[in-house]
Amino acid sequence: MQRRFHAPVVLPADPACSLLRDAVVDVDEAGRIAHVGPASEAPGTSAPVTRLSGILLPGLVNAHAHSPMTLLRGMGGDLPLLPWLTEIIWPTEAKLKPADIRTGMLLGSVEMLRHGVTTSAEMYFEGEQLADAVLTTGGRVVLGPPIMELPGMDWRAMLKSIERWIDTDGLRFGPGERIEVGYGPHSAYMLNEEALRATAESAAERGALVQIHVAEAALEDVKQREAHGSVPALLEKVGMLRGRTLAAHAIHLSDEDIALFAARGVGMAHCPGSNAKLASGIARVTELRKAGVAIGLGTDGPASNDDIDLWEELQLSAMFARLATGDSTVLTAADAFLLGTRGGADALGRTDIGALETGRWADMVHVDLDDPAFAAGIDVPDVQLLSNLVWAAGSRRVRDVWVAGEQVVGDGESLRVDRAQVQAEVADTSARLRS
Amino acid sequence: MQRRFHAPVVLPADPACSLLRDAVVDVDEAGRIAHVGPASEAPGTSAPVTRLSGILLPGLVNAHAHSPMTLLRGMGGDLPLLPWLTEIIWPTEAKLKPADIRTGMLLGSVEMLRHGVTTSAEMYFEGEQLADAVLTTGGRVVLGPPIMELPGMDWRAMLKSIERWIDTDGLRFGPGERIEVGYGPHSAYMLNEEALRATAESAAERGALVQIHVAEAALEDVKQREAHGSVPALLEKVGMLRGRTLAAHAIHLSDEDIALFAARGVGMAHCPGSNAKLASGIARVTELRKAGVAIGLGTDGPASNDDIDLWEELQLSAMFARLATGDSTVLTAADAFLLGTRGGADALGRTDIGALETGRWADMVHVDLDDPAFAAGIDVPDVQLLSNLVWAAGSRRVRDVWVAGEQVVGDGESLRVDRAQVQAEVADTSARLRS
Repeated sequence: MQRRFHAPVVLPADPACSLLRDAVVDVDEAGRIAHVGPASEAPGTSAPVTRLSGILLPGLVNAHAHSPMTLLRGMGGDLPLLPWLTEIIWPTEAKLKPADIRTGMLLGSVEMLRHGVTTSAEMYFEGEQLADAVLTTGGRVVLGPPIMELPGMDWRAMLKSIERWIDTDGLRFGPGERIEVGYGPHSAYMLNEEALRATAESAAERGALVQIHVAEAALEDVKQREAHGSVPALLEKVGMLRGRTLAAHAIHLSDEDIALFAARGVGMAHCPGSNAKLASGIARVTELRKAGVAIGLGTDGPASNDDIDLWEELQLSAMFARLATGDSTVLTAADAFLLGTRGGADALGRTDIGALETGRWADMVHVDLDDPAFAAGIDVPDVQLLSNLVWAAGSRRVRDVWVAGEQVVGDGESLRVDRAQVQAEVADTSARLRS
Repeated sequence: MQRRFHAPVVLPADPACSLLRDAVVDVDEAGRIAHVGPASEAPGTSAPVTRLSGILLPGLVNAHAHSPMTLLRGMGGDLPLLPWLTEIIWPTEAKLKPADIRTGMLLGSVEMLRHGVTTSAEMYFEGEQLADAVLTTGGRVVLGPPIMELPGMDWRAMLKSIERWIDTDGLRFGPGERIEVGYGPHSAYMLNEEALRATAESAAERGALVQIHVAEAALEDVKQREAHGSVPALLEKVGMLRGRTLAAHAIHLSDEDIALFAARGVGMAHCPGSNAKLASGIARVTELRKAGVAIGLGTDGPASNDDIDLWEELQLSAMFARLATGDSTVLTAADAFLLGTRGGADALGRTDIGALETGRWADMVHVDLDDPAFAAGIDVPDVQLLSNLVWAAGSRRVRDVWVAGEQVVGDGESLRVDRAQVQAEVADTSARLRS
């Protein structure tokens, strides 16, 4: 059904981060955006008009997540990384059944949608369960089913299974092309060169996204760095930087690594909250932005960054860039907003989400103004309103969310899923995992 | 009226950060806590019992704020500090009337109460207006009316006016002793030695708290550091570290400065969010904690740290300590929770707030569990529940708040003040300030 959305403020996430006053967004029957502009210049329409009271913006893009880990949220408290992984997380994950992972993803997807995050890039097992959960909540996902070498895991079989899936269902499928399938080779230290090369070739052949952890912790990748100078150099050697590649974390990069990312069009998923909580470090975002690398923001998994609220990453990305440079102007509210929307789409190699622009999917978020954050009203200068949105309001007043033109959150709650029931299922699963 | 509160979880903020299951808090007629402990060991009572569904904890303490600046929230966007102050903030503040400041404080106080922050330490002009606003919302405040030297300002008159107020009304007054009056000498660079010395003497005579900005920006205090080695050394020389002193920000401290703070019992208001947003730096919290300095958390003003939500400072304090040390275990969820509660009280030199303990004021917060943050339920290990509260839930599910035993927030809204009306007054004031 064609529809027009009419709001006092529309924030399309164009490259200049302009703000349109009294503007409309037209959505076509397929759920794509047909027109965006001031109401006074809008074409005539017979479509029903939805009048909104607040700010209409594109759905945020979470560029790196392991959302089914809602099942493990807060487990182990604040243990050091290695005991946390080996004593708590991995033994617990070993008990997970496919249906558990669907439950965990259901909750994660509902949470993200309630925060106004319409797309997430997910590295987690049981991709079919994730896809099913996201089709249930009405969100959008870019899957990167893991490929790794561990006892009991066969990277060739994992790769084949992704190929089979894409060759059967296509790269994108589902209503509004909600599901995209890609590749999730875990990291250079969890895979040999042959596996990395085979993954890169398979993905490039299919035009699929490769999601991979790069240079997250100072003590990882040691062997790879000794042998190849740097992990990006190794990835270049095996051909992994030639296709659509998303480097998650990417904290410990040299100037040469950054130049290589820029030259090859590698996207980066910046995860400031997780990187800080795990004491991994601050990524070189200011240098990466200067080099022209496409950067999105990621929450990482809720086991390590607990409420998967991407608005916090917007704030943290600005704070950390300022701390790292000593310059309070290097990353503004507008810059942070673009990282969380358009930047995420760019980093994923997608031009059909992340902004309110003709031809893109109508993934949209309505933030209402009933909050002290907006007490000054909307008749304030653009820069102030944007500041109020990014720095003060965050996810708190996300009221309505649409994906491919279909409303999936109304008045702050999922319209598709009974949140209380999902939470009860998570509680049951969590109890079983502890027993 | 005597009352008993009965909750499945009580988090008293004792020094070990213990968590009591199925516990009660008894409140006496004056609004002070009479007993805290497991329900199974509670004394008999004829008092009415309020049954709560979630977690009962002490009200948080915001150790450094300029809350009336809700009127200026987001103004100037992301300008560099100096133009932001000289072109936007100061010219706008010059237009403020006393009634405006009351309006700004009304909103700030309502916001903080809705976030579960029951006490704030405030450095702002028009102390009587602030006190009136806080008595209206039902919060609690420690005032530090400014003392500074600027054209048109007379530090002697400012000091005298504080003395007169304390000598007339006493150090603490109002129902539940909600208002405490202290001294707010702005900083060592805004006052000469004579003024600092006179302030220190006057405050020590009255047992009053001195709130002062210390070593916030690398480029301030330059003259003072040249002349005295460090700002703490200067404050020591003028006798300002002998009484109750709260150093706000305190970022650029030497080992000697830290040792001096510890030896003199100086409290510190750590403001990680403001310090990051303004690119001022990361305070040496791990070293300060090791030295035994009492540390609380502060939001700073909403013009620079926009939503005055102290829960974010809890998270940021842990993130920044971990980034600064490269150790993910140096500041746990429990540590952060104590900084935001008991630590804030300690830093203010108060033993009557910041924890649920017999004899302290019943400043209490009820966080309910209807959130994905608590999807695993409450039958999880203590460390996980605390992690879910601090890292995932934050202020989102603060439902009920009491100050001195009186309920001031119910179901997330102020019971004393019409928030919509206050927001409308802020909008009017904001429009006038822009004109």
